[in-house]
Amino acid sequence: MADQKIHITLFGGGHVGSHMAKSLLKLPQVQLQQIYNRKRESIIAFENETEIIDDLSLLKPADLFILALKDDIIEDFSKKLIKFDTLTVHTSGSVPLSALQTQSKGVFYPFQTFSKDREYIDFSHIPILIEATNTQDLNLLNRLGNMLSNIVQVVQSDQRKALHISGVFAANFVNHMYEQAAEILEENQLSFDLIKPLIMEVAQKVQDLSPAQAQTGPAIRRDEKTIQSHLAFLTDDNQNKIYKLLTESIQKETKHD
Amino acid sequence: MADQKIHITLFGGGHVGSHMAKSLLKLPQVQLQQIYNRKRESIIAFENETEIIDDLSLLKPADLFILALKDDIIEDFSKKLIKFDTLTVHTSGSVPLSALQTQSKGVFYPFQTFSKDREYIDFSHIPILIEATNTQDLNLLNRLGNMLSNIVQVVQSDQRKALHISGVFAANFVNHMYEQAAEILEENQLSFDLIKPLIMEVAQKVQDLSPAQAQTGPAIRRDEKTIQSHLAFLTDDNQNKIYKLLTESIQKETKHD
Repeated sequence: MADQKIHITLFGGGHVGSHMAKSLLKLPQVQLQQIYNRKRESIIAFENETEIIDDLSLLKPADLFILALKDDIIEDFSKKLIKFDTLTVHTSGSVPLSALQTQSKGVFYPFQTFSKDREYIDFSHIPILIEATNTQDLNLLNRLGNMLSNIVQVVQSDQRKALHISGVFAANFVNHMYEQAAEILEENQLSFDLIKPLIMEVAQKVQDLSPAQAQTGPAIRRDEKTIQSHLAFLTDDNQNKIYKLLTESIQKETKHD
Repeated sequence: MADQKIHITLFGGGHVGSHMAKSLLKLPQVQLQQIYNRKRESIIAFENETEIIDDLSLLKPADLFILALKDDIIEDFSKKLIKFDTLTVHTSGSVPLSALQTQSKGVFYPFQTFSKDREYIDFSHIPILIEATNTQDLNLLNRLGNMLSNIVQVVQSDQRKALHISGVFAANFVNHMYEQAAEILEENQLSFDLIKPLIMEVAQKVQDLSPAQAQTGPAIRRDEKTIQSHLAFLTDDNQNKIYKLLTESIQKETKHD
């Protein structure tokens, strides 16, 4: 090829899609030639930077189709792309490679949490987990992955699922703990700002130490007096249940060591 | 006084005590004149910077005694200091002010997690929560707090307890979620390094957004298919229980909105 650029069409204008579009548009060796979304309004922000379409009959030939779509529509949507004979990848943590119905298929999974409300996400520190059915496709995904990120790794569907589940614990459940903290603070006329430095330090700590080494608090100290006084304080039934289960769980882990 | 320095004696060589000693030693307006610990070895690192003692009969008069001691010995230990008639504060989140048996008493609570394995902690971003029984004592604690940190706030014992409990959720339980993630990754031959950027981003997000706004994942999307597939994957009974309880809890919160 005279033109060494990777010609990409991106499908989807949600959290992952729009953050990925922003990053792909910055890559000199990538031609993000079209962005498709069922609703044109959701991708209108990109209309000056690339062609935005809401009609599949306008699709141009490409080297790569990236489906940044909701998990449950990936399989059906991929059927509409069979005739293009183009390597088609999805970006999901929990959908297996085999869900894609195209001949050439793969996975291009950025392991990060994406929110609409976050202006910009730097992909260079986001691990990208790739999977494909043959070496040629894997090489293309690897090449693209390395343009975006410093961490590109091949993982099979089962491992990717494990990674996704670990993310539910370390992101969704962690955030839910923050939410409990926010509620307790609010009920006691205390600002959430007071806990922000603690939240950062706890995350920072496990960049260097293992979580097992980093654990502190009444549960691991087996400080029953404090634990009981906290349980008495927590009148919310749900918070009380969570406190009990996680305290027991921390104490179990310690016994195993 | 000709000498405007605050003369302080610090008691305790544990996580909080040693981090606090390092920071107090840097303050030009503080004279950290003695550090006491039951075992001299634990505070030997400070022997060139101040007087280290393991014998209470060597105590000098001071403006302030800071007890960075374990929660359950604070009350008894404070009895030994009654005769000095010195403002005595503890640094605990869960011990009430009234536990101190000295005439002048207060609380000087740095709201942060301290580990021996962390070399240095910058106190300037750590909220310091203070409490005292009279304005004069409160002013001294406020003055000292502001030398160490940008965030000093007066909170009463009940509010301090709420703050401490919120910290159990946002620090100890969060760290336990990291530990579950680490176990799942290890069992599936994946490096914990892969999840570190996600952990930082989740903590970073709630510096700007509320945790409720920041929530993502299968629970809040009510993606039952993914939730069931995750539960089937989690063979560890304890992890299974945690996954279920926290998924339900996330879905309850959303209903309330």
